Amino acid sequence: MTNYNAQQIHLKSRPKGLPTQDNFEIVEVELTPPQKNEVLVQNLYMSVDPYMRGRMRAEGVYAEPYALNQPMYGGAVGEVIESNNENLQKGDIVLNGGAWQDKLIATADTLTKLTPFDKNRLSLYLGTLGMPGMTAYVGLFKFGEPKKGETVFVSAASGAVGANVCQIAKQLGCRVIGSVGSDEKAQWLLDECKVDEVINYKACGDLTQALAKAAPNGVDVYFENVGGSHLEATLNVMNHFGRVAACGMISTYNNSEPAPGPNNLMLIVGKKVRINGFIVFDHNDMRAQFLSDMESWVKDRKIVVRETVVEGLDNSVDAFLALFSGDNFGKMIVKM
Amino acid sequence: MTNYNAQQIHLKSRPKGLPTQDNFEIVEVELTPPQKNEVLVQNLYMSVDPYMRGRMRAEGVYAEPYALNQPMYGGAVGEVIESNNENLQKGDIVLNGGAWQDKLIATADTLTKLTPFDKNRLSLYLGTLGMPGMTAYVGLFKFGEPKKGETVFVSAASGAVGANVCQIAKQLGCRVIGSVGSDEKAQWLLDECKVDEVINYKACGDLTQALAKAAPNGVDVYFENVGGSHLEATLNVMNHFGRVAACGMISTYNNSEPAPGPNNLMLIVGKKVRINGFIVFDHNDMRAQFLSDMESWVKDRKIVVRETVVEGLDNSVDAFLALFSGDNFGKMIVKM
Repeated sequence: MTNYNAQQIHLKSRPKGLPTQDNFEIVEVELTPPQKNEVLVQNLYMSVDPYMRGRMRAEGVYAEPYALNQPMYGGAVGEVIESNNENLQKGDIVLNGGAWQDKLIATADTLTKLTPFDKNRLSLYLGTLGMPGMTAYVGLFKFGEPKKGETVFVSAASGAVGANVCQIAKQLGCRVIGSVGSDEKAQWLLDECKVDEVINYKACGDLTQALAKAAPNGVDVYFENVGGSHLEATLNVMNHFGRVAACGMISTYNNSEPAPGPNNLMLIVGKKVRINGFIVFDHNDMRAQFLSDMESWVKDRKIVVRETVVEGLDNSVDAFLALFSGDNFGKMIVKM
Repeated sequence: MTNYNAQQIHLKSRPKGLPTQDNFEIVEVELTPPQKNEVLVQNLYMSVDPYMRGRMRAEGVYAEPYALNQPMYGGAVGEVIESNNENLQKGDIVLNGGAWQDKLIATADTLTKLTPFDKNRLSLYLGTLGMPGMTAYVGLFKFGEPKKGETVFVSAASGAVGANVCQIAKQLGCRVIGSVGSDEKAQWLLDECKVDEVINYKACGDLTQALAKAAPNGVDVYFENVGGSHLEATLNVMNHFGRVAACGMISTYNNSEPAPGPNNLMLIVGKKVRINGFIVFDHNDMRAQFLSDMESWVKDRKIVVRETVVEGLDNSVDAFLALFSGDNFGKMIVKM
């Protein structure tokens, strides 16, 4: 007999500032067995990502806000355990939007069947081969447009997106500078990702000076994950006709009151800078190329992957909160 | 006998905050008669523009800083009164870089011979048919990219650049909203430039609310001349995939200490906004098209021109300072 009991993490109240465990609750439900074209999925891995913080606000930043007292959602990889759809079989591995749930009923058209290049590395499809990896790929190629020999600066450089940006840019022949918040992350970027310079922004003192030293030829492309003082410092050091691929501004996500922005935005004019905000979901036309390139780079070890894996849905809130404390390292994954 | 006595305005000291008369001095010089390929020009009109404030800093924002105790420079229209170059004749009207001087010696290759469409309106070549007009044209077409039916918001909308942006956008079939600092300017924009809505930012209370009311369908294109709270309000009201043509940020030019920027830059990401800083001098490839379009629009009265004309080089500093007090109206011109 199939077991239709599932666990879900619900948003119980909207966080003010940094979320706490009290904003969430774990709920046991019994799912309705799948109807026509529906599938029962057992999730194996789920993703927690910084963008989810935006969805916890009443007014969504990136996308629809999460409803209160409903399961939250996001990227997950699972296995089909019961199918009422002819294209999906028991045992198929599917990318789905049912994060924060260990099991879910989903209509077949919301699932992407994966052909994993390594069945022991399914979590890659939530990171380097998934949304964060594609965010890196789209942001860098479409909006950063780095040329060989140019200097690329990446904030949150050891993160799920940033580490991929760094390694793609290195392959393109760029000088790559990463900013991180710990010496351990800095060392990994230097040793494993082969970036040219790393700044520990918590220890470097004046960030503009540190960046100017790391980028003696100026910054041509800035991959923006952080905002605030990182953007201000980058504009100070940016070259004329520099490009900013604005992917996120994690420094602002937990502000209960909006914090003032950089004081030097006039440099955007004087240096003829282009800034593109973007969200990966608008760029599905690049998905096939991304997956083809990235899978081959991962296979060839041209791109290395670092994950922090937390076990159990009941630890998913802790995993999420670690994204903002800097305690995570690489892509944060929850293994069910 | 040709008179080689000339008057020049020199930058005597670098202003801190708002410039004062004390930062400048008027100097009498005797010019060296023109050598081979040189020309003696009697200026008829000179331009004062907000960008010149940037050049008064020790570190240039747009361009090379002005040297101390040297004549400042900028756009001017003059008449050739003595020529040692075969392509320029006595009586020719030339656009030159010798603002802040009533007479100057210039090499022929620094001069652009004009074929004025109306000899009584030579000052147009410093405004609508000159640098500010081309700034409007380049910024709107190349970076704003408005489509018919979209909403275009223009700050400093009655200014030398802004009034042209408004009127070009109206011709493209856009809904145009201008922001100005006086009711008189607002009325002129409504009556003469036929913009759809005007906000007097000094009287409107909360700018975001005022803009949201004036732009019920949101803002698609923002032509940025002001910065600060104008940019913040616009981001609040901007539509997804909105474009910002960042031409200047006059609210910041006289800050002796940098002021904090907008507190909502994360909206650049969430709304997938593109911001392009630009400077007109990089886009000379569009000059012929600009001049052809703009001259025909002015002739057909599709674009109306408002100027404030101040008489005499000795009043040029006052004319320049009026740019920052909001006392000017339209393009500020000094008639020699």
